Amino acid sequence: MEIVQAVRWSDDGTAVRIVDQRLLPERYVECDVRTIDELCEAIRGLAVRGAPAIGIAGAMGLALVAAKLDGAPRDEVLQRLKHAADTIRATRPTAVNLPWALDRMMRTACATSGDAGDIVSALRREASAILEEDRAMCRRIGEHGLALVPDGSRVLTHCNAGALATGGMGTALAPVYRAVEAGRRIEVFADETRPLLQGSRLTAWELSRAGVPVTVLADSMAASLMRAGRIDLCLVGADRIAANGDVANKIGTYPLAIAARHHGIPFYVAAPSSTFDPGTPTGDAIVIEQRGDAELRASFGVATAPDDVSVYNPAFDVTPHDLVTAIVSDRGVHRPPFAFGEGTRS
Amino acid sequence: MEIVQAVRWSDDGTAVRIVDQRLLPERYVECDVRTIDELCEAIRGLAVRGAPAIGIAGAMGLALVAAKLDGAPRDEVLQRLKHAADTIRATRPTAVNLPWALDRMMRTACATSGDAGDIVSALRREASAILEEDRAMCRRIGEHGLALVPDGSRVLTHCNAGALATGGMGTALAPVYRAVEAGRRIEVFADETRPLLQGSRLTAWELSRAGVPVTVLADSMAASLMRAGRIDLCLVGADRIAANGDVANKIGTYPLAIAARHHGIPFYVAAPSSTFDPGTPTGDAIVIEQRGDAELRASFGVATAPDDVSVYNPAFDVTPHDLVTAIVSDRGVHRPPFAFGEGTRS
Repeated sequence: MEIVQAVRWSDDGTAVRIVDQRLLPERYVECDVRTIDELCEAIRGLAVRGAPAIGIAGAMGLALVAAKLDGAPRDEVLQRLKHAADTIRATRPTAVNLPWALDRMMRTACATSGDAGDIVSALRREASAILEEDRAMCRRIGEHGLALVPDGSRVLTHCNAGALATGGMGTALAPVYRAVEAGRRIEVFADETRPLLQGSRLTAWELSRAGVPVTVLADSMAASLMRAGRIDLCLVGADRIAANGDVANKIGTYPLAIAARHHGIPFYVAAPSSTFDPGTPTGDAIVIEQRGDAELRASFGVATAPDDVSVYNPAFDVTPHDLVTAIVSDRGVHRPPFAFGEGTRS
Repeated sequence: MEIVQAVRWSDDGTAVRIVDQRLLPERYVECDVRTIDELCEAIRGLAVRGAPAIGIAGAMGLALVAAKLDGAPRDEVLQRLKHAADTIRATRPTAVNLPWALDRMMRTACATSGDAGDIVSALRREASAILEEDRAMCRRIGEHGLALVPDGSRVLTHCNAGALATGGMGTALAPVYRAVEAGRRIEVFADETRPLLQGSRLTAWELSRAGVPVTVLADSMAASLMRAGRIDLCLVGADRIAANGDVANKIGTYPLAIAARHHGIPFYVAAPSSTFDPGTPTGDAIVIEQRGDAELRASFGVATAPDDVSVYNPAFDVTPHDLVTAIVSDRGVHRPPFAFGEGTRS
């Protein structure tokens, strides 16, 4: 089984090499990000997306910034790194992985004694560690989630919480990939996920590439499949999980959870423990990014709504914890009552 | 308030003039349908759509077929009309209005004594009557539904059950138009309605044209609006209503009904009584049309899913009666327990 690698160092190590997800499923193109402007543009424009992958790309990007400061005075290096981290941090407000990764990089920088060269080396190692840890973390999520995906499972997923969203085999899709590796017959139903269609463009693409049977449907069709008895479980990712287990994830997750509850179907969230946000007591405190009108008004370059009407286009919704059957993380399978206070994230 | 006219006779009466809904919202173009092939293509291709409008267009089309047979022997006229009616009937399987209108036209033809010319005249009158009755019926739905849409209402609707779907002011939108006519401040939230976006392309267009404030959202965003307390009621149309009140309507209606129930929001269906199908005891007996893969695989003319994955693309879903707060028809407001047996449709 060949699982795509979404973010890595370029061969010469001077760039962050990402799969440009804006071009999928039509073209599979990798591009090299070398500057902070290119990185911010790649994150904002969703060339790289998915909370873990954004965190990794942010950390690796900060390491590239440091490399360009080699030879500068230590104070200036730290100051410019902080400025760069703030700039990168501002690109997407909802996911917690990006600030988490950037904070970790800044702590490493501050804790490194010596000159700029020492900081450059330390940040390079730290960014690589964040990537490798994510790969390992995905696999652990897959291991822990394996028991939830028995042979013959028909799994509904939303958006892309797969390899394309992480440094490894994905979060929501990790149990699926592990189950397939273990020889189980798994079928995935992928919501297309309006407005940017990460499900039909990305999840369907990466699963198909890995040889996993996948069916694409519009978001509004999932409830019909559930009613017809064709879905055994839902498995979605998360961008942020509040201390009480409320889950912020791609818009459209919440209605799926409501429908799953209505049909008595388990609703699982799979996410790295870095997604737990102990500082956010409930989902009500999560800031939901509102995206531009054009995503609904001019989808894919054609007029899909009149120019003179309003548009409501939140990027995420919050699924309250009482609709979540279990949360799978690299730490294990968490069941209600959820309590992700301090000390619960890696 | 200017409400669009979706289907009518051309000025010289030799064609069915329809608004080509494939071109909205970008261009407002009317086109004249003169042959049975053009009519079937217009129905199949969704240039004319919406259960009542399809019924009207079918009846008017059959009248045009008759006009071309003027002078033929009576038996041949009836035989060729029956063949034409069968051809038109086969274009869309789910809505009941089309066979209802065609059966009514055929009964008129058979009951008309005299020669071909008499049948031609009778069918022309009958088709015009079906159009005018629909206009009146829409207005009656609006009157009956008026009490459900108080001043200040924020109404969520799905797909297009408006003027563009009927001969008059629509079904689901009729209470909205009547409320606005009555001076009430009404705000509509229009689900875009994947895959063909009748909500963002058509409902938003006709409401905006009529001066009604409207906001477009992706189907998956409706539950978030409900949770935020920004929706007072749901109001949708129906393609077929079983005797027990189960409602077949555009795919995506069922998850809305589940979400409305979850949030304690009234879920209203507004439809002409011709939509009641006494011969269908429950929604389980309703045949759901499965549409082609291209609507999800190549949306908007670009590749939106890989070529090698499966696609699930039902045109309709069935909302069970227990999720429906009330059904508004031209006969009044029907509340549970629903019983649409023989004698309940006009």
